[in-house]
Amino acid sequence: MPYVNIKVTQEGGPNGTGPSTDEKQRLVAGVTDLLFKVLGKNPATTFVVIDEIPLENWGMDGRQVSTIRAERA
Amino acid sequence: MPYVNIKVTQEGGPNGTGPSTDEKQRLVAGVTDLLFKVLGKNPATTFVVIDEIPLENWGMDGRQVSTIRAERA
Amino acid sequence: MPYVNIKVTQEGGPNGTGPSTDEKQRLVAGVTDLLFKVLGKNPATTFVVIDEIPLENWGMDGRQVSTIRAERA
Amino acid sequence: MPYVNIKVTQEGGPNGTGPSTDEKQRLVAGVTDLLFKVLGKNPATTFVVIDEIPLENWGMDGRQVSTIRAERA
Amino acid sequence: MPYVNIKVTQEGGPNGTGPSTDEKQRLVAGVTDLLFKVLGKNPATTFVVIDEIPLENWGMDGRQVSTIRAERA
Amino acid sequence: MPYVNIKVTQEGGPNGTGPSTDEKQRLVAGVTDLLFKVLGKNPATTFVVIDEIPLENWGMDGRQVSTIRAERA
Repeated sequence: MPYVNIKVTQEGGPNGTGPSTDEKQRLVAGVTDLLFKVLGKNPATTFVVIDEIPLENWGMDGRQVSTIRAERA
Repeated sequence: MPYVNIKVTQEGGPNGTGPSTDEKQRLVAGVTDLLFKVLGKNPATTFVVIDEIPLENWGMDGRQVSTIRAERA
Repeated sequence: MPYVNIKVTQEGGPNGTGPSTDEKQRLVAGVTDLLFKVLGKNPATTFVVIDEIPLENWGMDGRQVSTIRAERA
Repeated sequence: MPYVNIKVTQEGGPNGTGPSTDEKQRLVAGVTDLLFKVLGKNPATTFVVIDEIPLENWGMDGRQVSTIRAERA
Repeated sequence: MPYVNIKVTQEGGPNGTGPSTDEKQRLVAGVTDLLFKVLGKNPATTFVVIDEIPLENWGMDGRQVSTIRAERA
Repeated sequence: MPYVNIKVTQEGGPNGTGPSTDEKQRLVAGVTDLLFKVLGKNPATTFVVIDEIPLENWGMDGRQVSTIRAERA
């Protein structure tokens, strides 16, 4: 009965505003399949929760991702 | 000083868009009371945080809940 | 399909080293029941994960709980 | 490679609707600097994620913060 | 720069006490690869953290997994 | 009433087995002070929880930190 939480920044995807519905489905299916293949975990009780984080709420290297992206643009 | 995080899918409730304010209050009161009764934890320092997750961001059985709900409809 | 995470300090319980097996069972049953009663959530797909945190790894008021407990002793 | 998650209520800040972009930047910089100074952690691989929680989704003392704030007003 | 947290019960694996080092490596590699393939995320800044939870600290269907396993034995 | 969770690998510190008690105290005090200075948050209701993660349970760049450390040794 695994629980998996995936946090990604709210960017990319078809509109630049984050993963599409289909991309999220591929994450859910991929993680569930991985846990079944590696550990034999039952897909029926494998939960996957995806959190999309605004760029200004995610920091790396002491700076917000919104700033990092603007510098590279 | 417990910290409790409750994650539910963003559905149900009075408008079908998730728990109502009152239902959230009942969750907060119920969890706080439970921790007091079972472990004697002080309500004043018991935190409860509720996260409401969009249906397409929650996966179970390798599929998004949005898909599971559509199939059953 | 709720997911609930309960974090408590590793203290109290029958030996002073944290909740007993039975106390954890009461937390699991109580939270699951609460989510069923308030939101109609299916117990079969309600997960509860309890984390027990060493006193020196939990801070409140700018101090470790291990220090707060020692001061009150 | 630390990972830090900061959860705050969605209030305060310049408009009363939560921390400003600049305040979030100061949190990101401050936490990253703290981990470097205390533990020597590399800022390049220090992640900071800020979650802003609606007042009715955060409980303390058995009541929602939205209720606590209204009572004090 | 995704962050992924995988929680599994502390069981199974070569000694029945949880995933082996190699199985954890396969989880890390698999999740990192999935995020690269589906969302183009840079593996260098993809973090994966695995938590192994004692059976009596994980509840499902209102009961501890330790109890569920004992009933099935 | 902020809640802060700091996850670090279980290494470094005086014995190479993770942060010392004093280092953790400095993290708790530093984060609490930061939230007070930047957002005016009350230290009395600021919680800080530190998780120390075994090296083989933390992955970066598709590999376990235990492997990364061994390669650099």
